[in-house]
Amino acid sequence: MLESVTIVGVGLIGGSFSLALKDKGLVRNVIGVGRSADSLDKALELGLIDEVLPLEAAVKKSDLIYVAIPVDATVPVMSQIMDWVSDRQIVADAGSTKKALCESLAGHPMRSRFVATHPMWGTEYSGPEAAVHHAFAGRTCVICEKEKSDPEAVEVMEDLYRQMGMHMVYMDPDSHDMHAAYISHISHITSFALANTVLEKEKEDEAIFDLAGGGFESTVRLAKSNPAMWLPIFKQNRDHVLDVLNEHIAQLRKFKSCLEKENYDYLQELMDNANKIKRIIK
Amino acid sequence: MLESVTIVGVGLIGGSFSLALKDKGLVRNVIGVGRSADSLDKALELGLIDEVLPLEAAVKKSDLIYVAIPVDATVPVMSQIMDWVSDRQIVADAGSTKKALCESLAGHPMRSRFVATHPMWGTEYSGPEAAVHHAFAGRTCVICEKEKSDPEAVEVMEDLYRQMGMHMVYMDPDSHDMHAAYISHISHITSFALANTVLEKEKEDEAIFDLAGGGFESTVRLAKSNPAMWLPIFKQNRDHVLDVLNEHIAQLRKFKSCLEKENYDYLQELMDNANKIKRIIK
Repeated sequence: MLESVTIVGVGLIGGSFSLALKDKGLVRNVIGVGRSADSLDKALELGLIDEVLPLEAAVKKSDLIYVAIPVDATVPVMSQIMDWVSDRQIVADAGSTKKALCESLAGHPMRSRFVATHPMWGTEYSGPEAAVHHAFAGRTCVICEKEKSDPEAVEVMEDLYRQMGMHMVYMDPDSHDMHAAYISHISHITSFALANTVLEKEKEDEAIFDLAGGGFESTVRLAKSNPAMWLPIFKQNRDHVLDVLNEHIAQLRKFKSCLEKENYDYLQELMDNANKIKRIIK
Repeated sequence: MLESVTIVGVGLIGGSFSLALKDKGLVRNVIGVGRSADSLDKALELGLIDEVLPLEAAVKKSDLIYVAIPVDATVPVMSQIMDWVSDRQIVADAGSTKKALCESLAGHPMRSRFVATHPMWGTEYSGPEAAVHHAFAGRTCVICEKEKSDPEAVEVMEDLYRQMGMHMVYMDPDSHDMHAAYISHISHITSFALANTVLEKEKEDEAIFDLAGGGFESTVRLAKSNPAMWLPIFKQNRDHVLDVLNEHIAQLRKFKSCLEKENYDYLQELMDNANKIKRIIK
């Protein structure tokens, strides 16, 4: 059991991580750090954290410092934290991009105390109220640059995540970012764009949403996601996201061209091919 | 209570309609009609229907004939059924497009016995095993060209759907098809295209799906939908679907252009705008 864990950013991910630690009896005391006093009060009230401290004081008294804030803010905050930690402490992040952060820490003298992790879970909600129990169970956790972290620090993180029900996958940061672009980031862009498509129509036809049902909801729900979290992800992962977006637009154009040319054999083929996703998504 | 109802096409929609009739005690006997003997056996076994008959025999002994087969097959089958019905029987369909069918029946001498309906519900599954209890509860049902149907026939259908928990919306067929293109058909195309985008990547990177999680699943699940149902919908609703698809590609291009030009203020604006969908989707 860890004596004390600091969560920097007690929102959807940080709050859910804390709940999992507590539910599994993996920690005695959780310290919350954040920019918004309201948010921290809420986190205390919800039992996500046990106390609130300024960053430096929190870092100094923690076995593990877990950073779950937007990926652009993570870079400078993590560098600051790393300046404060000793070789008996562990620092980890939960960010949706890995390359920029890993590069920024590459030359840090305490690099080996940092473990780059990405628990692959999320919802379209944010803030401490969005934290839920058993969030990570059954999900994949990516660990990057395992070889640059002290084996003992990696083991501690693997053990925590495994006890939360996750299984580990190891990747270099650039592979992680490319995979995340295909499997997560593009889904958000298509949802945002679909929402805008229909909201645009609503300007001339106010009743357009009258028929909205289950299918629409599931494809558009990610459009409710917090831009403060997603803008930095798209920024840091720009190259990979652009690659996937170009490919996705090309795929949509095939559907468009089939309809324009009334080439229904090829349209059938495109849908038959898409059905192969059944192999992946049960 | 209806004495006898024929369901033509005992799959996802027809089967769920039958279950709802039975659950609410609205019918004594349900007759199944379909092309596949296996499917009809399954429907009998699952209790979706009470007996199987050839179309003409089934029509002749039913108070209501409910057609829930792919929209291209609906046109000739419905015309055949209408030739057989008397003015004491009611015929209704559940199709996702309305214009082609309504036009095809416009001059039929029995037109007033037909009620054009579209219960707005569905899943990515198909066949009798996909039928579920309480499917339509809380959903919208569209009725088109109400004025062309006998008021008493419309009332029967409204009453059945209301007892299943649906609320009615009235539209002309072309408006229905346009709304359906925005609220349902485009979601299927984006899902099919997203599945193809990632499946294409899998050809060079077999591990691409390793990180697939909840967000990806919800945006891509409609890609499992049955092409035999969706191809005819896209065909019949080609003009509206093309309009929406063009608009959607234009919206995606805005995201692409923001990333290419690193115009992050506008990217933020696009996401802020998409967040307005919270007003619609709780």
